Amino acid sequence: MVVVPLDTKREWAARTGLQPILDLVASDLTAVNEVILGRMESNVARIPELAGHLIASGGKRLRPMLTLASARLCGYEGRQHVLLAACVEFIHTATLLHDDVVDESALRRGSPTANAVWGNQSSVLVGDFLFSRAFQLMVDAGSLKMLGILSEAAARIAEGEVLQLITTNDTSTTEDAYLDVIMAKTAPLFAAACRVGAVMCGRPREEEEALTSYGRNLGIAFQLVDDVLDYSAREQTLGKTIGDDFREGKITLPVILAYRRGNDTDRAFWHRTLGEGQQESADLDHALMLLQRHGALAETLDRARHYSAIARDALLIFPDSKVKDAMLAVIDFCIERGH
Amino acid sequence: MVVVPLDTKREWAARTGLQPILDLVASDLTAVNEVILGRMESNVARIPELAGHLIASGGKRLRPMLTLASARLCGYEGRQHVLLAACVEFIHTATLLHDDVVDESALRRGSPTANAVWGNQSSVLVGDFLFSRAFQLMVDAGSLKMLGILSEAAARIAEGEVLQLITTNDTSTTEDAYLDVIMAKTAPLFAAACRVGAVMCGRPREEEEALTSYGRNLGIAFQLVDDVLDYSAREQTLGKTIGDDFREGKITLPVILAYRRGNDTDRAFWHRTLGEGQQESADLDHALMLLQRHGALAETLDRARHYSAIARDALLIFPDSKVKDAMLAVIDFCIERGH
Repeated sequence: MVVVPLDTKREWAARTGLQPILDLVASDLTAVNEVILGRMESNVARIPELAGHLIASGGKRLRPMLTLASARLCGYEGRQHVLLAACVEFIHTATLLHDDVVDESALRRGSPTANAVWGNQSSVLVGDFLFSRAFQLMVDAGSLKMLGILSEAAARIAEGEVLQLITTNDTSTTEDAYLDVIMAKTAPLFAAACRVGAVMCGRPREEEEALTSYGRNLGIAFQLVDDVLDYSAREQTLGKTIGDDFREGKITLPVILAYRRGNDTDRAFWHRTLGEGQQESADLDHALMLLQRHGALAETLDRARHYSAIARDALLIFPDSKVKDAMLAVIDFCIERGH
Repeated sequence: MVVVPLDTKREWAARTGLQPILDLVASDLTAVNEVILGRMESNVARIPELAGHLIASGGKRLRPMLTLASARLCGYEGRQHVLLAACVEFIHTATLLHDDVVDESALRRGSPTANAVWGNQSSVLVGDFLFSRAFQLMVDAGSLKMLGILSEAAARIAEGEVLQLITTNDTSTTEDAYLDVIMAKTAPLFAAACRVGAVMCGRPREEEEALTSYGRNLGIAFQLVDDVLDYSAREQTLGKTIGDDFREGKITLPVILAYRRGNDTDRAFWHRTLGEGQQESADLDHALMLLQRHGALAETLDRARHYSAIARDALLIFPDSKVKDAMLAVIDFCIERGH
């Protein structure tokens, strides 16, 4: 199996705010990759084949990097953080596999999804396998408290995904209801990934909560920018296609804002295309025009900035350090990739 | 939500060897049901709705009963066994939800499957939720060793399911390869459900291994009888439909035996119907006739008896007691329901 080498990721990160954190955790991240490759092994060849397709396809490893950095911020010097970072990535990967089945997605990061290559059935089952492996990693890390944090996050993610499924095609979704979805779907793993850094060092409750807040708000900002990118990303640089959310009838914040700011004709358009899923070839362009006209993308980025400001403030209780600076730069990265 | 009352289950169990174990663990099982109902709650209404559909639909609760009985066999007097029994049932339920998606099943226990009612997407996600809840229950039970046992079992089950997926439609599957599937897919949860009984009492390794062996071999026998029932069950009494495995192209032991014992014409039949999935209305009857002619169902029951004998011997190291008798009667139940 070919794993996208760290060098390629570095080139990409060099143009982004991820470079400082990547420099700091580079050797730990290599160890995390080794654990990941080792733990996705199985006598059933399809498992590493399918899991490797997604895990090796050049994801940013953002969540495990946050675990490594949070541990370092708290002065951690053991090896538990490597296992837990791998565990966080396994939970994330299992979620992506099931997500792509649920959304019937054909492309992720510019490559065919696992379900497109091996079918939904294998994706569901290999997701379950990775999920189980994640818990085995937590057992190896040996802390019941961290097991509690990560299993709670996993349950919340599943709740968020079901909630999102229910709001799909519902154009009357409010901004509050949408925030409930991403606070459940995206924020918990970011929050848990950071929180365990404080827990593994036995740091006081204040620092545990600060890292939780940093992670949660960074996660919300990250998701909101993701929603914007779905209507504006340059396909080549980000391996994303424009309009996936639109085609899947997903109600994200840009749409919620444009729907509310629009007139009756606009609402009829959103209702037909997203509510009833009746889309014609020119509809995505019309949607993009409406989002632009109502400033919905810029406004969504403003909302993201609000959460990124909370994430920034949360870190202030920690003394200044290179790690803290790198974690602040991650916030900038999350916002800036939206431009 | 209506949970099938224990009384109804008792009537059913009265005609089976399950009555002794049900009598012994009745009050514990009520506590397990309370934990199950409490832990499947969520603000997202579809989750308890969908999970309740399956959990309340009158499953035998065989696996959690085994945990309760194993704990009692080892003299356990705490409350951990209730949490772990609920956890075992959650893992089982999550597996069933995903199984039905993978197999595209429309009926289970005579009722429409969750995926038939709420769609594949919800079934995948609610399965993930229950899986996470299972791990939260383990964390509450507070034992890393038991977390290790159950997460290992969960990973093995997923491997077994993938393996089964790969052998589906492959008429050249050998008996050994098929045993590999059920040793991974069905046996590990039975084994783990029993093993934790010894672990929670801190019993010596010999007893832990004896209960593991009892569970594993009981699980194998149970699955083999299930395979027979799929070609012989009376629909009304067991809530099963005949021929599900046949329609899904599943290669189970009765088919493997009939394939090997048959002539070229027979093999061509199995190849067309199961290998290529080209089935006509009279094919199931022809399959039943071939299974009968080659004694494949009776022979599969004989194989099941072999494993049930191992399960029986495994329990011999424990002193005689009502619990031990009840656990031996479970073995009889597993075999006798095949007649």
